[in-house]
Amino acid sequence: MEERLILVTNDDGYDSRGMEAAVEVARTFGRVVVVAPETTQSGMSQAITMYSPLYLRSVREEEGLAVYAFSGTPVDCVKMAFDCLLRDERVDLVLSGINHGSNSAVNVLYSGTMGAAIEGSFYGCPAVGLSLDDHAADADFEAAVLYGRRIVGAVLDRGAELPLCLNVNVPKGRPGEVRGVRLCRQNRGFWREEFFRREDPRGRPYFWLTGEFVNGEPGATDTDEWALAHGYVSVVPVQADLTDYRQLKRLDGMFE
Amino acid sequence: MEERLILVTNDDGYDSRGMEAAVEVARTFGRVVVVAPETTQSGMSQAITMYSPLYLRSVREEEGLAVYAFSGTPVDCVKMAFDCLLRDERVDLVLSGINHGSNSAVNVLYSGTMGAAIEGSFYGCPAVGLSLDDHAADADFEAAVLYGRRIVGAVLDRGAELPLCLNVNVPKGRPGEVRGVRLCRQNRGFWREEFFRREDPRGRPYFWLTGEFVNGEPGATDTDEWALAHGYVSVVPVQADLTDYRQLKRLDGMFE
Repeated sequence: MEERLILVTNDDGYDSRGMEAAVEVARTFGRVVVVAPETTQSGMSQAITMYSPLYLRSVREEEGLAVYAFSGTPVDCVKMAFDCLLRDERVDLVLSGINHGSNSAVNVLYSGTMGAAIEGSFYGCPAVGLSLDDHAADADFEAAVLYGRRIVGAVLDRGAELPLCLNVNVPKGRPGEVRGVRLCRQNRGFWREEFFRREDPRGRPYFWLTGEFVNGEPGATDTDEWALAHGYVSVVPVQADLTDYRQLKRLDGMFE
Repeated sequence: MEERLILVTNDDGYDSRGMEAAVEVARTFGRVVVVAPETTQSGMSQAITMYSPLYLRSVREEEGLAVYAFSGTPVDCVKMAFDCLLRDERVDLVLSGINHGSNSAVNVLYSGTMGAAIEGSFYGCPAVGLSLDDHAADADFEAAVLYGRRIVGAVLDRGAELPLCLNVNVPKGRPGEVRGVRLCRQNRGFWREEFFRREDPRGRPYFWLTGEFVNGEPGATDTDEWALAHGYVSVVPVQADLTDYRQLKRLDGMFE
């Protein structure tokens, strides 16, 4: 059997701790190519760079692992990998992460990690976005590595119909504290923001975006938000057709 | 009846030609507040700014119109409007655009215009993203203004169940050439990129992202891509739940 090839990317940057953990997961399954942002790209969603040139840098190359840093967004990294660096190779899976902080619920839309995973799934292979619900600089990635391996392994070994993109979130804590894996749907909810207002040394006001997630369905037990809050790894399969089919019916004739 | 309040934003910047056209549409219906990016934010998707402070600038204020430029992304602009500037007011509709270039098919995911529209729909009012399928600097916005008015007017006057977010794309050409409005679903497809490689004056290679849209279902006649290509204004209602419900069933038991 030919050796598998895993593309790894993230939104925290090529030299983040979560990237180290993601490479650990990916190397279990074959050869690894990392194409990841030079700098942090958190909250970059599925953004692409249209009006700036992008620099690519080979960071290191060793047996079974090549690491590139790219000056663009997470999605730019995926495009650079598939459409340029790995153009003549077959990629078996895209792993994006491990993100510092969860991407459950509506965060899937803002997340650069998930933007890259969705983009990866456009290229005819399964994609997994993997996030750890812990923002601490010294976060413990052990459970995320363990469950990341289990989920990536299941996708690679047992196969799945394509397109397949998974939004995987691992709760904070030691592996022994995790209660298992739950397949979920995306929790409805939104962010209400507070803008912190300050003044710069020249007296100009500036703002920091900061907010609080409002759970739109706190009672629901089949959502990623519930699973994470109750100690489970949440797995939400995501797809890229945003059509609101219910509204499509309701609006029939409205604009004629 | 109290005067209506329309929030206008875009991804091309507060002083773009498309913004002028959007304000023309919005002023038909009431008081207008513009909160739009200082500079072009095309391709910014639903990105938010997490690690930089943001500057807000009042550009001008006249009877029925206030214009603010904000140094963040389109989504940052929407958040700034709802959670800060207009915190104590009721916004009746968010209009995002008019974008230079279409946002049909998968482009809805990369588009800053649609990112802002989707964000707007989280705040309990209808949102319309309006784009013109013409990238030319001297593009003719007349048809987009005309159909924008018709669609915004229908939403405001006839009402619609919330959440409601519309992805509206207007074909290139004079109003008389438009064949009507079609409610559609999002066309499947993806971009295959070509990276143009050049060298900077210091000999370092750099890349420009450039690509071509691959229509994943060229035969389908119920999609936005088909409507636009055949001279119709396409209207796709979009929503923010990315859950892939078919995969949710298929994957049952896979990760236990």
